[in-house]
Amino acid sequence: MDSVKALSIKRVTEEGKKEAEDTVTRELPLTIILNNQELVTLLCSPTGLNYLAVGFLSSEGLIKSKDAIKKITVDDQRGVVRVETGEDKEFVDIFKRFITSGCGRGASFYSATDATGQKIESQMEVPAQDVFTLVGKFQHRSHVFRTTGGVHSAALCDTKSILLFSEDIGRHNAIDRIFGECLLRNIPTDDRIIITSGRISSEILLKVARRNITIIISKSAPTDLGVRLADDLGITLLGFVRGKRMNAYSNDWRIVRDGK
Amino acid sequence: MDSVKALSIKRVTEEGKKEAEDTVTRELPLTIILNNQELVTLLCSPTGLNYLAVGFLSSEGLIKSKDAIKKITVDDQRGVVRVETGEDKEFVDIFKRFITSGCGRGASFYSATDATGQKIESQMEVPAQDVFTLVGKFQHRSHVFRTTGGVHSAALCDTKSILLFSEDIGRHNAIDRIFGECLLRNIPTDDRIIITSGRISSEILLKVARRNITIIISKSAPTDLGVRLADDLGITLLGFVRGKRMNAYSNDWRIVRDGK
Repeated sequence: MDSVKALSIKRVTEEGKKEAEDTVTRELPLTIILNNQELVTLLCSPTGLNYLAVGFLSSEGLIKSKDAIKKITVDDQRGVVRVETGEDKEFVDIFKRFITSGCGRGASFYSATDATGQKIESQMEVPAQDVFTLVGKFQHRSHVFRTTGGVHSAALCDTKSILLFSEDIGRHNAIDRIFGECLLRNIPTDDRIIITSGRISSEILLKVARRNITIIISKSAPTDLGVRLADDLGITLLGFVRGKRMNAYSNDWRIVRDGK
Repeated sequence: MDSVKALSIKRVTEEGKKEAEDTVTRELPLTIILNNQELVTLLCSPTGLNYLAVGFLSSEGLIKSKDAIKKITVDDQRGVVRVETGEDKEFVDIFKRFITSGCGRGASFYSATDATGQKIESQMEVPAQDVFTLVGKFQHRSHVFRTTGGVHSAALCDTKSILLFSEDIGRHNAIDRIFGECLLRNIPTDDRIIITSGRISSEILLKVARRNITIIISKSAPTDLGVRLADDLGITLLGFVRGKRMNAYSNDWRIVRDGK
C-alpha cells in the first residue's frame, strides 16, 4: 500500500479558491493480534507492518527475541498482523498487565532503572562533528521522503552512517518499526545511536533504553522526565541539534571535540 | 506545578562545550481513576489536570455530561485525578470495551458516522480573512507561551476570537483539556472552530466531531483518513494555514470571500 495518497483540494487565498491536487500521508488502523488475542489497534503509516507489530510487542515487553516468534501473518489490506509465539499461557498474564495500560508503567517505570533493569555503561565517544554530519544526513533523507508534511522520522545509526530509516505518522511507531526490523533481521542495537524528528519524552527514552541505545538525538526538545531518565540510565541525550549547534542534556562526556 | 523546568545543560558547537541553562517542558504521568477503577496513565503537561481528565473521559465516551460527575479529586503532586460518577455498574461495562483498547474503535469508528452518530449540518460560513486572522492570533499566543519547543497547542474559537487555549506535550491532551473545560464550565462547542498545532489524524477528527465542531484548522497536515472522515461527517478541514494561504480538504463551501 502506498504511504501517500493524492487528493483533490482547494487552495484558498484572499483572492479566492482554486482546484488543486495535494498529497497527504496515509493512515492505517493496524490491529495486532498476539496468539489469537486482539491486543491493540495502532494508527500508523501503511509500511513495514511486520516490523512495526514486532517492534511494538517488543517495546511492550511481550516478545523478548526473534526465537520466540513462531509465525507472523500480515494482511496489509485489512490492516491486521497476527503474531504467534506458542506461549499462550504466559502471554495471557502479561497481556492483562499490559491491558491495565500505562498505569503499571506509571508506577514502575518512572522510578528509574526498573524499566530496563540496567544502566548503559558504554564508553563510546563521538566527535561533535560526526553528530552534526549524521543529523544532516537524517534531515536530507527525511526531506526527500517527506512530500506531505505530517510524518515523523527515526533512524538507527552508528557514529558514521544511517543503518535503518523509518517514517510514520506517529513518532512512537517510527521508532518501534526500526526496533522490530532489528529484532527480525538480527541487527544489534547496542552502542548504536537513535535519531528522531520528534520530542524526547519519557516513553521514547524508555523504548531506546530497552535496546541499550547509547545516544539519542532529536532536532526537537526533550521533556524534563526524558532528561531525568536519560541521566539515570546513562544515556546521552542531545536535543535541538540544528546546523552546527546542539544542547547536551545528559552524559555529555560522550561528545568530544574532533581529533580528541 | 510549573509547566516548565530550568536545567543545567551543555551547549555544544564545533568549538567545544559551554555550561548553560535551558528550559524544558515538564512531563507528568497522570493516572485517571474512574469510580475507583484505575483507567489509564497519560503523559501530559502538569496543568489543568481536572479539565484534562474529564476531557479524556468524555472523548472516550465514559462521561456524557457535567451532571454525571459527582466528585473530582485532583492530587497534582502524585499525578492522580479521581472522578466519581456514582454509576459503577454502567461504567464497568464501558470500561471493559475501552480496555480492549483501540480495537473496538478500529472496528466501529472507521466505518464512518458511527463514531458520532451524526453529521455536522451547520450552515455557518467564515470569510477566509477571518481564518487567517484567527490563526495569526493562535500562533502569537503559542509563541508567547512556547519557550521550550516541545509542546502542542490547541484553541477553541468562534469566528472572531480565541475562547479557550491549551498547551500540552501531547496534541491529543491539548484538545481533550479544552473539551474538559467546556464540559465543566458549560461552554458550548456547537458551531465552534478548533485550531491545533498538530497533524489532523482520524482520532483528532473524531474527537472534534463528537463535540459538533464545525471547522478544524491546522498549521500542519491532515492524514487521508482524517480527510475522509471530515468529508463524511460534514466537517470543514483546513490544513497548512500559513500566512494568507491554506488548503481546504473538505467542505470548503463554508470558507467564503470577505464581504460575500
